[in-house]
Amino acid sequence: MDKIWNSYPDLKGELTLVLDLMKKNVKCKDKKIENSIIELIESGGKLLRPAFVLIGSKFGNYDREKSVPTAAVIEMLHMASLVHDDVIDDSKLRRGQETIQSKYGKDYAVYIGDYLFCVCFKILATSSSLQAIKMDSRAMSKICMGEVNQLNSRYSTKLSIKEYLSRISGKTAELFSLSLSLGAAECDAKKNITKTLYNIGHNLGMAFQIIDDILDYEGNDESIKKSAGNDLKQGIYTSPFIYASMNNPKEFKKFIGNDELEDEDIKEIIKKVKENNGVVDARQLAGKYMEKCFKGIDSLPNSEYKEILNDISKWLLLREY
Amino acid sequence: MDKIWNSYPDLKGELTLVLDLMKKNVKCKDKKIENSIIELIESGGKLLRPAFVLIGSKFGNYDREKSVPTAAVIEMLHMASLVHDDVIDDSKLRRGQETIQSKYGKDYAVYIGDYLFCVCFKILATSSSLQAIKMDSRAMSKICMGEVNQLNSRYSTKLSIKEYLSRISGKTAELFSLSLSLGAAECDAKKNITKTLYNIGHNLGMAFQIIDDILDYEGNDESIKKSAGNDLKQGIYTSPFIYASMNNPKEFKKFIGNDELEDEDIKEIIKKVKENNGVVDARQLAGKYMEKCFKGIDSLPNSEYKEILNDISKWLLLREY
Repeated sequence: MDKIWNSYPDLKGELTLVLDLMKKNVKCKDKKIENSIIELIESGGKLLRPAFVLIGSKFGNYDREKSVPTAAVIEMLHMASLVHDDVIDDSKLRRGQETIQSKYGKDYAVYIGDYLFCVCFKILATSSSLQAIKMDSRAMSKICMGEVNQLNSRYSTKLSIKEYLSRISGKTAELFSLSLSLGAAECDAKKNITKTLYNIGHNLGMAFQIIDDILDYEGNDESIKKSAGNDLKQGIYTSPFIYASMNNPKEFKKFIGNDELEDEDIKEIIKKVKENNGVVDARQLAGKYMEKCFKGIDSLPNSEYKEILNDISKWLLLREY
Repeated sequence: MDKIWNSYPDLKGELTLVLDLMKKNVKCKDKKIENSIIELIESGGKLLRPAFVLIGSKFGNYDREKSVPTAAVIEMLHMASLVHDDVIDDSKLRRGQETIQSKYGKDYAVYIGDYLFCVCFKILATSSSLQAIKMDSRAMSKICMGEVNQLNSRYSTKLSIKEYLSRISGKTAELFSLSLSLGAAECDAKKNITKTLYNIGHNLGMAFQIIDDILDYEGNDESIKKSAGNDLKQGIYTSPFIYASMNNPKEFKKFIGNDELEDEDIKEIIKKVKENNGVVDARQLAGKYMEKCFKGIDSLPNSEYKEILNDISKWLLLREY
């Protein structure tokens, strides 16, 4: 488990229960399938989303019997979408390990993702409420739509920050919002607190993703070629690129909509994005969401878990890797 | 809508409501997505599964407000799994129309399938019970496992009827059982009737799939090359082939596990399957399930819908196309 959780032993203990519950629920006759999913569970994601569920729950009448299964469902929905994303992106590695699609084939990965979706709803139906299922399925629909939008907008020559924001809202922020608010709603937190947690999740998710996209342009040569380069080659344009190209359209014209970018082009693009204030402007955009996020946290009633949420948000938004 | 429903105007009216509800629930901002799903809804599947839900409901305290959404969910789960199956099989056509994956690409089809799953659970959470969601997600897990088993057993040289039966049980019978029993359970039918309907669904589904596999060997040259040929080339062996190869192992040795079968081989296999009693033995197997199916129907309390279920089962199991 990520070492961040060592600072919060109670939360760490509950996250262990979450992982155990996930493993228990993916048990099936076919041991090859079961093992490939257990490997995925143990491959050490940050467990941010289940932690958000648990933290959100603490703002209501915390009940481990409700919160742990809800947290397990959210992490499993996240895993299911990652498995399908890897199919789409043809990814070879995830969390440093070979992806399911690379190890067992795309066909297998499509069904494993579907199976994980089913397990999620099975857990929900056993230990949760119709309200939670409604919130979950709505959020998941939005996330799917976000992914489809990203597919549809590939190589689009009409770049806009608005479209970028709507894309990352579905891709990242929606599951952050869901996590923080679902835990609270399930534990009967006050409606206004649940709503505040939803908004914090949204702003945190937006800032997190924008920073992720900025870091793609600030890493070392190798990491840039991998991350920003991959996106650009797939026709996915993120905020630093969009801002830079709005600041100096002529310089970027030949790259936009170009599906034959070479490594040399990527190098040139990264240089030009920095020269044309792409990173600076994107940092400002992230700053706006960060401000809203911390203002939201500030407005929560004082408690140990308000401080923890504040700490984790800082850790996520002020990282440099 | 299939002309079979013209004989049952009440059922036909309700199936129209089911289609309308499906269309209403897939409405989304992205019109391209919405239209591609609506095309799929309108492309004229037989609507067997939603009809089974409605028929099952009639054995309880029929309530349209519960049964129509449940029927819509079942048809949509079926559609979602077809969309993903087409991705796996690389199918170009489905119900005579171009498949989503052929029209818009595999990536798109993976997410459309996921989106359909989400819509299902959204409808369930809005108009159904936790019990229904539990039954649904359990059945869907089994169906996914069935698909994975089919993938894992491709080109396997260890042919067995037991393995074939377990494969088609997940692939076809499970959703038939679910459909007939879910409608009944949702409308508070007696437990023993719900259980009988579950068993009827299982036996009907098994017989239906075995007959489907038999018809692959009995069609004209062109249709055989397409259906049986496709399965064989993908290393999927169905009951006529399995029986024939058990009856005369030497004759089939060179074909089993062979992933380079040509059209000439397919022709030879079909001839040999018939010569070695593959079709005859498979008919006998189907007969056993048919018998159980009609015995089950016979044991239901007398009603208009018992007759309808009997009619439709006959129509499905005695077809020659």
